[in-house]
Amino acid sequence: MSYPYAMESSVRVFAPATVANVGCAYDILGFALEAPGDEVCISLSTEPGVRITAISGDGGRLPRASNQNTAAVAVQAFLRQIPLEQGVEIEVHKRMPLGSGLGSSAASAAAALHGINYLAGTPLSQTELIPFAMEAEKAACGSAHADNVAPALLGGFVLLRSYEPLDVVPLPPPPNLYYTVVHPEIELRTEDSRRILKKEILLKDAVVQWGNIAGLITGILQKDLDLIGRSLNDILIEPERSLLIPGFESVKLAALNAGALGCSLSGSGPSLFAFSASLQTSQAIGTAMGSAFADLGIKTQKFSSLINCSGPTLIKPSTHRAA
Amino acid sequence: MSYPYAMESSVRVFAPATVANVGCAYDILGFALEAPGDEVCISLSTEPGVRITAISGDGGRLPRASNQNTAAVAVQAFLRQIPLEQGVEIEVHKRMPLGSGLGSSAASAAAALHGINYLAGTPLSQTELIPFAMEAEKAACGSAHADNVAPALLGGFVLLRSYEPLDVVPLPPPPNLYYTVVHPEIELRTEDSRRILKKEILLKDAVVQWGNIAGLITGILQKDLDLIGRSLNDILIEPERSLLIPGFESVKLAALNAGALGCSLSGSGPSLFAFSASLQTSQAIGTAMGSAFADLGIKTQKFSSLINCSGPTLIKPSTHRAA
Repeated sequence: MSYPYAMESSVRVFAPATVANVGCAYDILGFALEAPGDEVCISLSTEPGVRITAISGDGGRLPRASNQNTAAVAVQAFLRQIPLEQGVEIEVHKRMPLGSGLGSSAASAAAALHGINYLAGTPLSQTELIPFAMEAEKAACGSAHADNVAPALLGGFVLLRSYEPLDVVPLPPPPNLYYTVVHPEIELRTEDSRRILKKEILLKDAVVQWGNIAGLITGILQKDLDLIGRSLNDILIEPERSLLIPGFESVKLAALNAGALGCSLSGSGPSLFAFSASLQTSQAIGTAMGSAFADLGIKTQKFSSLINCSGPTLIKPSTHRAA
Repeated sequence: MSYPYAMESSVRVFAPATVANVGCAYDILGFALEAPGDEVCISLSTEPGVRITAISGDGGRLPRASNQNTAAVAVQAFLRQIPLEQGVEIEVHKRMPLGSGLGSSAASAAAALHGINYLAGTPLSQTELIPFAMEAEKAACGSAHADNVAPALLGGFVLLRSYEPLDVVPLPPPPNLYYTVVHPEIELRTEDSRRILKKEILLKDAVVQWGNIAGLITGILQKDLDLIGRSLNDILIEPERSLLIPGFESVKLAALNAGALGCSLSGSGPSLFAFSASLQTSQAIGTAMGSAFADLGIKTQKFSSLINCSGPTLIKPSTHRAA
């Protein structure tokens, strides 16, 4: 990978928001969005160590400490494998809501990793960056999950077949599969959404779920949008987590009535995603879902596009450079 | 579909044995074998009703009654939708062991259905025959499962995404994926194998299982044999059911040491299947598994081939014709 406009000591990177727990595929599948996403400016510095020099767009809520901020934790993990002589300064520009269920922490970590890997001469593949981003997720939320960071780094759909050992399988999206993502301006804590889940489930329910998971994977790989829609059905996680989202049922119904192939929670919520077969439909779905939330007095942000297949991208050298 | 050698009033059909519960994919996936399988001769008759006129190869153990024999039950279900003026006489020639975990009852039903559909002028597709075969399964073992009958009727791998409504998704096998099937001459009752399963499982174990299921489906569709091998791992069903198979661990180890991509129970056992990338390896695996069973004094039958992609096939008009 080479970028003619690249600078050797500083680079600005966009990394995408992501949808994890895609319907039935809890904890094993995610995909990347064209928007929203985060921007990170990463610069080599004569001063040793990894420092967060600025954060914007977070309302002052993100930690600045290098052992807590996901971008800094990810870069430090990278540097343990690929040591550099210089220090690293990181600006994080949040362009997406925190706590939205859209992989906010993963986007910052993915952008920072793509940037530091580029500045180091791209010694590692995008896939090799995933474990560093998982360390950042662990710092951010206590669990080294990969279903946001893997699609944020690779683009497209990504299957996490296994964690021990880590086995990451990219799945090319159907070329005409559009997403709608709607973020209601309410906030959930991931821990609450995890806590609400039952630890034990019925084998017969698991069989229904994994039939749908197999159908979803088949639909993605065979570019069968109807099969994707039939398979999105999540009988285990969504019924419990959706209790935390005011108006979930009416918003989902609005999406389906507007032509969605299927609709479910993004990550642990509160955002929802839907799939459809055209940009026009995906936008109409966003409008319908936004109206359903508005009926409850809840403001929303809406995003519609094809699935992001490129992962993180370099942005033209910015004027926001670290000293 | 037309067969130049077809006869109007009598036809002989082969239908394949099948492997269900493919590793991790319990209750949702099956595939068809080139051998073994059953043969059925089905003839129109001036005498009304559906009759079993002969059964060979069953040691006298299969029911002759039309409301119990799977071939007859399946044909009666077909005739409720596609009534014929004539009666039907059925000879069943078992060419495979009963109670082997290889879909014996499904093979007879699939052969009979393919035959009667042919004699009726092929009014229904193979997929449309599946519900009749499921009725036969219900008569045979109390549960209208489709993971044997669907691949017996369609060939290849078949995903049962859903039962309510029935959603059957054929998956084309990788062109170089070979199976080994080894049947140890011991007998299990399907009911025992079902009863041994826990009704409740941990969500975290289900997640491991469905990661593997998603990997298996991806491996099949992307023709990635290594991924198929990594994904076959069944942490929920095999550990319990394999307790009923003497020597299971050593036989599985023998398969893996002989080059198998993976190895697990076929259906609820006692047969085992393994996958590999060449005919030579698949045969070596059969030899190794057979030896491991022989060490315990257990005789085996062994089968190796590419996966059957054709489902039931007509056999040249036989001399075994019903009056």
